[in-house]
Amino acid sequence: MSMSVDGFIAGPNAAPGNGLGDEGHRLHEWVLPDADADRRKDLDHLTGASREIMDEAMATEAVVVGRRTFELAGGWGGDHHDGVPIFVLSRRRPDPELEWPGVTYVSDVTTATNLARNAAGGKDVLVHGARTARLALAAGVLDELRIHLIPVLLGRGERLFDDMPPHHIELELLHAADEPGVTHLRYRVRTEN
Amino acid sequence: MSMSVDGFIAGPNAAPGNGLGDEGHRLHEWVLPDADADRRKDLDHLTGASREIMDEAMATEAVVVGRRTFELAGGWGGDHHDGVPIFVLSRRRPDPELEWPGVTYVSDVTTATNLARNAAGGKDVLVHGARTARLALAAGVLDELRIHLIPVLLGRGERLFDDMPPHHIELELLHAADEPGVTHLRYRVRTEN
Repeated sequence: MSMSVDGFIAGPNAAPGNGLGDEGHRLHEWVLPDADADRRKDLDHLTGASREIMDEAMATEAVVVGRRTFELAGGWGGDHHDGVPIFVLSRRRPDPELEWPGVTYVSDVTTATNLARNAAGGKDVLVHGARTARLALAAGVLDELRIHLIPVLLGRGERLFDDMPPHHIELELLHAADEPGVTHLRYRVRTEN
Repeated sequence: MSMSVDGFIAGPNAAPGNGLGDEGHRLHEWVLPDADADRRKDLDHLTGASREIMDEAMATEAVVVGRRTFELAGGWGGDHHDGVPIFVLSRRRPDPELEWPGVTYVSDVTTATNLARNAAGGKDVLVHGARTARLALAAGVLDELRIHLIPVLLGRGERLFDDMPPHHIELELLHAADEPGVTHLRYRVRTEN
């Protein structure tokens, strides 16, 4: 997740066609320096840790995503990357326009994560969307948290961490790397057992 | 400021005798590993970047602090460190129990900062308290932001960044350092002029 220092992962008023919210593009400049290139999947301009991190994301073998994020992105046309299976977290029936063979709608985060893990055959699963990440954290099914900290105070928008359970979740910093315009932080989520 | 990954700088229910809020001590373990030593000023156990950062804080020549933080800390007995002048931001009259020769009550953040800068004679000024930091940021009188990012999701408490102005404030990462249990981030606040 690309997050501002004040904790936002999108600007306000996110809607189809404005998927990152007002001025939310600022948080993604490290990946998408060209404001017109929101759909671009070409990552050739990235170097160093930023490149490694995007390569790792693109090497995941399944995606779990919240319905809102999925809809805002137009379902990525059914293909997030390399045609890997996509599990959409939603209690509502699918929109027929957002159904593809590789897309499965699932009503709870634990089931979605288990299905994705099986589909990934032991490889990593990418979790997409702030609310879904929070649900996965609360359910204890998130192994790692990767935050791309952007040196800006956005002031408003959607927070990554909001309405969290009122108890500590301990993290362990696995890796940190500074790149131009972004500090990459990789945390392991510590579980009790 | 010691801040959790989810943006809190204190637990809930901060009050005199519970100055860091419920479980807020977790955020300060890198400085105060012993929970009974809240008042301890002995920093001999710190090493590396953590030691440098605390040494820099203790080398500041004036302190600007919000009244609430000042009161929660019992006014540090009038001496935050080395007897440097303390400027307390408050519109209300001083509590007689919290007046000392080196303590000045000031009603607005720009005046407080200017007085502190003059008192510091060109050396750094320490700004204390989340609300005061936000006011100083909004007024454009904060040069740097130092965040000690603690690998925990606190889930509740007082946020460092809340009710911020609804416009971007660009930062520049000057320095980052990982130490056991804390990632130190030092940002310059970019101003328009």
